[in-house]
Amino acid sequence: MTRTASEPLPPGAATESDATRVAVSTVIFTLRRLPGSDAVQVVLPLVRRTRDPHEGQWALPGGWLDVTEGLDAAASRTLAETTGLAPSYLEQLYAFGAVGRSPTRVVSIVYWALLRADEITDTVENVQWFDAAELPRLAFDHNEIVDYALWRLRNKVGYSRIAHGLLADEFTLADLREVYEAVLGRRLDPANFRRQVENSGTLIPTDRFRTGSHRPARLYRYNQDVELADRGPLDARH
Amino acid sequence: MTRTASEPLPPGAATESDATRVAVSTVIFTLRRLPGSDAVQVVLPLVRRTRDPHEGQWALPGGWLDVTEGLDAAASRTLAETTGLAPSYLEQLYAFGAVGRSPTRVVSIVYWALLRADEITDTVENVQWFDAAELPRLAFDHNEIVDYALWRLRNKVGYSRIAHGLLADEFTLADLREVYEAVLGRRLDPANFRRQVENSGTLIPTDRFRTGSHRPARLYRYNQDVELADRGPLDARH
Repeated sequence: MTRTASEPLPPGAATESDATRVAVSTVIFTLRRLPGSDAVQVVLPLVRRTRDPHEGQWALPGGWLDVTEGLDAAASRTLAETTGLAPSYLEQLYAFGAVGRSPTRVVSIVYWALLRADEITDTVENVQWFDAAELPRLAFDHNEIVDYALWRLRNKVGYSRIAHGLLADEFTLADLREVYEAVLGRRLDPANFRRQVENSGTLIPTDRFRTGSHRPARLYRYNQDVELADRGPLDARH
Repeated sequence: MTRTASEPLPPGAATESDATRVAVSTVIFTLRRLPGSDAVQVVLPLVRRTRDPHEGQWALPGGWLDVTEGLDAAASRTLAETTGLAPSYLEQLYAFGAVGRSPTRVVSIVYWALLRADEITDTVENVQWFDAAELPRLAFDHNEIVDYALWRLRNKVGYSRIAHGLLADEFTLADLREVYEAVLGRRLDPANFRRQVENSGTLIPTDRFRTGSHRPARLYRYNQDVELADRGPLDARH
């Protein structure tokens, strides 16, 4: 029991772990309004696999970590290569490394990002957007990964400005409530919602209004002075 | 731009990424009362390295991921092997994978745990406990990793039952405040603190009191019905 911290052994001291490879995958969430409906849904892009294992199944965008790039860079690169998407900010979500999750041993470092509707660019061949609530059976353990990402999204929406990642810079309270309703998967009482966000100190009313077929609605923006609960020292790197 | 999700390639399709190895490391926090003082400090165990790179420097306990074990199991095993400690619950913290963090390319999946004082067992040779606020220069990027873990601890203590991991099952409000003060690194007003925790609904008063040299103080326990903000679907595995 006196073995000491062994990271790393000298080069050349090979062990079984050489058979483990590192991949990165990314879960991108955005909101889509259903045609002819008030409802919005959380959607994410998936890539159809063109080779085994799981040829023909849908999978999260991703790829192998290159030995000369950091994890964040690998996530951005593989996402761009597989989908054409380039969100301004990717956050590390979790490392998935169960032994049987792939025919060979693969540890996947999973990132996630939120995209506003106006940030969505045309995606490449083999990519489709799916309703997060009605996914097919995905390749590997990717259903489990999406479930985890959805749980984190629902959890974070309660104590951070995360909804901001899905909204324009200025928005009405109805816009904001719509984001919460889509993420949480349930309707919220408009009066209660208004009271809660107004009391939270996280929103700043502007003197502008959105006009249209409804009664004019005041536009708000997020108060950048309120610290996000989920940012940390590592954010300086981004 | 039509490359599709490439996780994983067929066995034998070797790339540069084969040169990347996966390690696990663990940050264990506990509280220690300074002799002859009211103050408690956050401490963690470090292991003195007995070989290069960084021979003689202190490092987080850890080791290589074995190809036949999951990430959680690797964290528990390497922690036990290097320190003798066996906390009941380890939580994944973050994956560190900057290119230059080690002479060879190493991605470290970092776990963390909280230990109550009564869970600390005798540790093995080459292990020492350090004040988290006054660490020496550690091996690799381990100072940065500890800073990140401390940030997460401070952050979580604000919205979850995480202090529970550092307390006995029943505790006084002064015990609880002491945990918060040690983690946050500042004194808290006793009356405000009492009001806040009593209003939070997270504590259940018992009908027992701690007696001794001071005025008897009521013992509390955590309300297990209040959901932890930081548990998720992955917890079912633990």
